[in-house]
Amino acid sequence: MRRAVCPGSFDPITNGHLDIIVRASRLFDEVVVAVLINKSKANLFTVDERIDLIREAVRSHPAAPANVVVDSSHGLLVDFCRVRGIQSIVKGLRAVSDFDYELQMAQMNHSLAGVETLFMSTNPQYAFLSSSLVKEVARYGGEVSGLVPDVVLKGLRDRSGS
Amino acid sequence: MRRAVCPGSFDPITNGHLDIIVRASRLFDEVVVAVLINKSKANLFTVDERIDLIREAVRSHPAAPANVVVDSSHGLLVDFCRVRGIQSIVKGLRAVSDFDYELQMAQMNHSLAGVETLFMSTNPQYAFLSSSLVKEVARYGGEVSGLVPDVVLKGLRDRSGS
Amino acid sequence: MRRAVCPGSFDPITNGHLDIIVRASRLFDEVVVAVLINKSKANLFTVDERIDLIREAVRSHPAAPANVVVDSSHGLLVDFCRVRGIQSIVKGLRAVSDFDYELQMAQMNHSLAGVETLFMSTNPQYAFLSSSLVKEVARYGGEVSGLVPDVVLKGLRDRSGS
Amino acid sequence: MRRAVCPGSFDPITNGHLDIIVRASRLFDEVVVAVLINKSKANLFTVDERIDLIREAVRSHPAAPANVVVDSSHGLLVDFCRVRGIQSIVKGLRAVSDFDYELQMAQMNHSLAGVETLFMSTNPQYAFLSSSLVKEVARYGGEVSGLVPDVVLKGLRDRSGS
Amino acid sequence: MRRAVCPGSFDPITNGHLDIIVRASRLFDEVVVAVLINKSKANLFTVDERIDLIREAVRSHPAAPANVVVDSSHGLLVDFCRVRGIQSIVKGLRAVSDFDYELQMAQMNHSLAGVETLFMSTNPQYAFLSSSLVKEVARYGGEVSGLVPDVVLKGLRDRSGS
Amino acid sequence: MRRAVCPGSFDPITNGHLDIIVRASRLFDEVVVAVLINKSKANLFTVDERIDLIREAVRSHPAAPANVVVDSSHGLLVDFCRVRGIQSIVKGLRAVSDFDYELQMAQMNHSLAGVETLFMSTNPQYAFLSSSLVKEVARYGGEVSGLVPDVVLKGLRDRSGS
Repeated sequence: MRRAVCPGSFDPITNGHLDIIVRASRLFDEVVVAVLINKSKANLFTVDERIDLIREAVRSHPAAPANVVVDSSHGLLVDFCRVRGIQSIVKGLRAVSDFDYELQMAQMNHSLAGVETLFMSTNPQYAFLSSSLVKEVARYGGEVSGLVPDVVLKGLRDRSGS
Repeated sequence: MRRAVCPGSFDPITNGHLDIIVRASRLFDEVVVAVLINKSKANLFTVDERIDLIREAVRSHPAAPANVVVDSSHGLLVDFCRVRGIQSIVKGLRAVSDFDYELQMAQMNHSLAGVETLFMSTNPQYAFLSSSLVKEVARYGGEVSGLVPDVVLKGLRDRSGS
Repeated sequence: MRRAVCPGSFDPITNGHLDIIVRASRLFDEVVVAVLINKSKANLFTVDERIDLIREAVRSHPAAPANVVVDSSHGLLVDFCRVRGIQSIVKGLRAVSDFDYELQMAQMNHSLAGVETLFMSTNPQYAFLSSSLVKEVARYGGEVSGLVPDVVLKGLRDRSGS
Repeated sequence: MRRAVCPGSFDPITNGHLDIIVRASRLFDEVVVAVLINKSKANLFTVDERIDLIREAVRSHPAAPANVVVDSSHGLLVDFCRVRGIQSIVKGLRAVSDFDYELQMAQMNHSLAGVETLFMSTNPQYAFLSSSLVKEVARYGGEVSGLVPDVVLKGLRDRSGS
Repeated sequence: MRRAVCPGSFDPITNGHLDIIVRASRLFDEVVVAVLINKSKANLFTVDERIDLIREAVRSHPAAPANVVVDSSHGLLVDFCRVRGIQSIVKGLRAVSDFDYELQMAQMNHSLAGVETLFMSTNPQYAFLSSSLVKEVARYGGEVSGLVPDVVLKGLRDRSGS
Repeated sequence: MRRAVCPGSFDPITNGHLDIIVRASRLFDEVVVAVLINKSKANLFTVDERIDLIREAVRSHPAAPANVVVDSSHGLLVDFCRVRGIQSIVKGLRAVSDFDYELQMAQMNHSLAGVETLFMSTNPQYAFLSSSLVKEVARYGGEVSGLVPDVVLKGLRDRSGS
């Protein structure tokens, strides 16, 4: 069984992330979306909320791929891969500034445990998207529909309304 | 009337910023310098001090352009543009590391409100300049004359002397 | 009168070029599209054909801006600007690989004649487009509708059919 | 059946190429190495020679993967993929200068035919390797053992001796 | 006497740093390794511990260069250079993301005091290495032998065991 | 004796090249400027003319360093280094687009013969300069004084006048 993992903070999932997850689901038997737990970072959504948002976003996507599972990971991603029988890490590349850091992580993960990283080019219409940019725009009341799944749109409104 | 905005933290304004502002003032009927208010960042100068330093630096520049106004902005830059009737954002590009982030912001601002961003290449002699580098050098008593307007030079000395 | 020039080989014009031209036409009183004549390069379309394709593409665009004129230029672009009373060069930036070369040209043109270059970010959906890529795909019978104006689509078919 | 293609000129195959091919062979059921025919480029080895060198290099590799086939392709790579039932293009990324061009090709191929491109990071010890650099060094009698498979080493010596 | 300085945080020294120090020691009469003191950053090892780790790592290296001295620096690096009679700063470059920042620092240091910066390319096998990546991997119990000198390996284990 | 080589086509030498050569002459006991002979490239000046232009430019420079010698090199640069007892290659880096290619060459030269490459940052005021840009501007009668040494200015005028 060919398994891949899509790791990230997903605080929250954007349409750019979702596009990568759905495209990856066509290339592998199973895609595991791993929400990375990083306690030193302040997040808008809890890990459980982020997992629920991803599940709902995948379910509501027109393709609604059935071979996507969502989970959280703390510790080293390569350990997560070994335990789950995952051979590949799949990452979206938006721009050159992503590239250097991601290449270093990829080479480190290969050196640590022989796990391969496969980079997919982000859909150009989402190339300018990031979770932090979405949160910044939403905080000031800017319009982010079209940039995030509907379920996230609702979550962001609840958050700013509270 | 063709209006452009030069946004930034300007903590403090450098000769690189000033060069972009003066050059932009030749291409537009009015240039608005917008000091962006970001409360999560610790600044050396207050917003009012930064505005005064920019006004004085523009006034003392040999070209002393009369069509430059200075103001502060909180919230989304595209909202500031809509309220002021500004069609373009003007930014200086120093290096590739600026490029990716600025391109993402430009595409987001275009997507949010149809506001265009125009990038000008920084004067090569200021390509290595940034406000944070200037502050770091000044903090340790390094010589920054030639890198910032005279009024800022004085402001930095007052600050480190206090 | 605020005039800008959009220079390029335009062999042929793509939807990415057209997008920049139309967006620039909203920021300046007149936009001159300059087809640069470079005899050392083998081109698919003659200079006159390229000019006609650009004129027709601008005319057929939904915005159909009336302040766009098309011409050819040989020699230095800064000389073209001086003769025409043009203050700014407008260029689309697609990616980092464009950036370094364009920055060098911009600084050279500023050093030679004080002409400013303003960079606009390419519409993300055209970020992967280039004239040479379009020609390569068309030569092998690939589908390029959606990537070039209709008039160019017809031109490419005539060319490959001959 | 999950099939991927590793396309390239392979004039000649280097240890960097071979490393990508072998690693890809572990992630897919079948890996097709496609020698791209480009008549406008002067090559050192003929297409048939290049195919033979790749076959021999794969066979002599310690892993000797049995699921690698080698073929040539002219025309569009996406047509090759459709005919062969290939879902993914696999490419090695060495450096940022590769990145922009490859990203454009990936987005074009996705736009043309929905074929995905997966990028793998090149093994750091081969990051400086390219076929053209190897040929240049070999032409002047430099030592390239360790940089290319043994069968290529022999081929380069025969070539420079003739 | 030709003296160069290798500055850095070295929290802790990696095999990538050590490789640059040893190679620089062959090109200059004396190489000073300067541990930069930055009080605003949280470090894993104290300045004195970092100095000891570097000294021991240099001593245990097969080349064991005798012309390497280790010291700490606070304040401006160019002041450190002037006091010590150092003409050149030597830095390893791993990737493009290093490049822009380092170039700005180099031009600032040249502008401040005429001190030259010489960049060496990092050994490709260490291109993905950084102190922070090493610390992150070690914190989660990942294997970092081969990435850092033995004395650092021991230091990291003591640290995570406490 | 600490010797470094500054290699290049130098067709013709620019003020950017000259700046690197003079700065390198302060860091090494002898600097050898090596004009690389590349028969497959069409050049404006012959190898002997280029050597003479470099010699005259160094002699006329205010610093007039006495430890600079000029020669030509065909074949591999590392062979040139071995024959001359040169330990280091010195190159100017202007921009990121230089970086990747130069890094590959540096790593290849280190792998081939243990020769180190030291990169110096180009003086920002010459960051946009290249021999080919200078030739293009001069061909169309543009003003290049200030960009090249006086002796080259004269050479370019003689050339375009013939």
